[in-house]
Amino acid sequence: MSHAPPDFFNQSQQRITDALKGVVATEDATVSAALTDASLYSADNGGKRIRPILLQAAALAIGGESDDMRLDAPACAVELIHSYSLIHDDLPAMDDDDLRRGKPSLHRAFDEATAILVGDGLQAKAFELLACAPGLSAQQRVSMIEALSVAAGCAGMVGGQFIDIQSTDCTISITQLQNMHSLKTGALIKASLRIGGIAAAANDAQLQALDTFGDCIGLAFQVVDDILDVEGDTATLGKTSGKDTEANKPTYVKLLGLAGAKAEAQRLLESALDALESFGDSADALRDIARYIVQRDH
Amino acid sequence: MSHAPPDFFNQSQQRITDALKGVVATEDATVSAALTDASLYSADNGGKRIRPILLQAAALAIGGESDDMRLDAPACAVELIHSYSLIHDDLPAMDDDDLRRGKPSLHRAFDEATAILVGDGLQAKAFELLACAPGLSAQQRVSMIEALSVAAGCAGMVGGQFIDIQSTDCTISITQLQNMHSLKTGALIKASLRIGGIAAAANDAQLQALDTFGDCIGLAFQVVDDILDVEGDTATLGKTSGKDTEANKPTYVKLLGLAGAKAEAQRLLESALDALESFGDSADALRDIARYIVQRDH
Repeated sequence: MSHAPPDFFNQSQQRITDALKGVVATEDATVSAALTDASLYSADNGGKRIRPILLQAAALAIGGESDDMRLDAPACAVELIHSYSLIHDDLPAMDDDDLRRGKPSLHRAFDEATAILVGDGLQAKAFELLACAPGLSAQQRVSMIEALSVAAGCAGMVGGQFIDIQSTDCTISITQLQNMHSLKTGALIKASLRIGGIAAAANDAQLQALDTFGDCIGLAFQVVDDILDVEGDTATLGKTSGKDTEANKPTYVKLLGLAGAKAEAQRLLESALDALESFGDSADALRDIARYIVQRDH
Repeated sequence: MSHAPPDFFNQSQQRITDALKGVVATEDATVSAALTDASLYSADNGGKRIRPILLQAAALAIGGESDDMRLDAPACAVELIHSYSLIHDDLPAMDDDDLRRGKPSLHRAFDEATAILVGDGLQAKAFELLACAPGLSAQQRVSMIEALSVAAGCAGMVGGQFIDIQSTDCTISITQLQNMHSLKTGALIKASLRIGGIAAAANDAQLQALDTFGDCIGLAFQVVDDILDVEGDTATLGKTSGKDTEANKPTYVKLLGLAGAKAEAQRLLESALDALESFGDSADALRDIARYIVQRDH
């Protein structure tokens, strides 16, 4: 199995980056140009765009078309939530990270106040995009907003980051570690899949299958991140490798050992693929992305 | 005219504070208890609740009932956005304020990381509340989310705070000052009124009248804040008085003088009342609140 991202992945990445820049750049003269510049800096960050790509692949699995323009706004919305979380996580009071994907993190390239405000603004923009998403019914839009807001908030991403910060220098169990990552990373990945499903009018059983797939690849994603933090080098990762070990954060590698963590990632991949059993070939993009998440080298 | 808040104001305040605590407290076992505690600290902050009260009064003006339970979720949503903005504004990298309404600001009572995350979580919760608001159509809910997200973002509150921080130690014109406050304070006040109007099924002309009223009282609110920053004392204000002068921030009092600022507040009050001309007695609560905003002493 190749380590290269699947074709679907490469095609979607550029489309999403272009759409994101369009969303963040504004013609509105009341908006400060300096604030727009800082927002664009974060949009053009070379991210993998895994969440919006999963959103598109989920719509495809349900019978939609991945290049359906109605997916653009929701795809940007989930990526904006992810981008804002990285900006805030990098702040000195949080993970204090100077480097993000090979470039200075936003508070280093600008300043802390700008980083806090750009993050806050991107979160608001995500919900604006969903509220105004063209071609979707009002009911689809509120269902998407519900999924994204819950995933982004204290019962999701924010709650997971809080537990992560609190558990630095602590010994936690594998169950606690999984809960933390389910919230911090898993919730938004799961919401991205669900939002793609909602866009393609998935039924409850299909949404449930996407949720299960999301649970598995969300955790797999984090297990692989922990493995790469130990095995990767800073140049390939685009962030400081060994950072989690240095900060004395709990990781899968610490709890399971390197071989144990790799076996866990493989087990999660298989469970993810099992969850898609009832889907036909239309879910092949989802299957490819799941394999890529586990086999990537950065 | 008395300086006391109108009856409507007092009745609504307690209802909103109770509803907010209910919203922020969660039964969800995956949410960290420490994060919930910090969120509750911010909900129980003795705020005036002007935005949710305006939302209720706007619904009343359109023919709704101010104690309609369908207003509770939207009322909490606008207050949560306001609360999160105060938490982030108080951070050391922003206004660096240790005191908020007579109590330690959130990052002083807890820590900076908690303050960033609580703010982020409250913003997400605001949109979740609107997406799930009972008794309102999906179209009403997406219209509310559109209004709130635009008002909260870079073309609104976040953009205004960014300009505010950039203009410290700068000389700016009265037009620039008004633009800054229209974004920073006015946008959310205007959105609160509009959301109350949407809840009561206002027509476009009525929403337009509420917008004009909101523009005037939003600015009036800020002019009075600047006056109180000079005239008030720390005990009555519950925050450090003279703070804006000390930080060398542009204010209406600096640009217009104390007497000029007072005349401007009065002029804005009259324009606000004019905007309500086509409304009958049902808009009396809005009129009372407008007078209170201009005549309050804290």
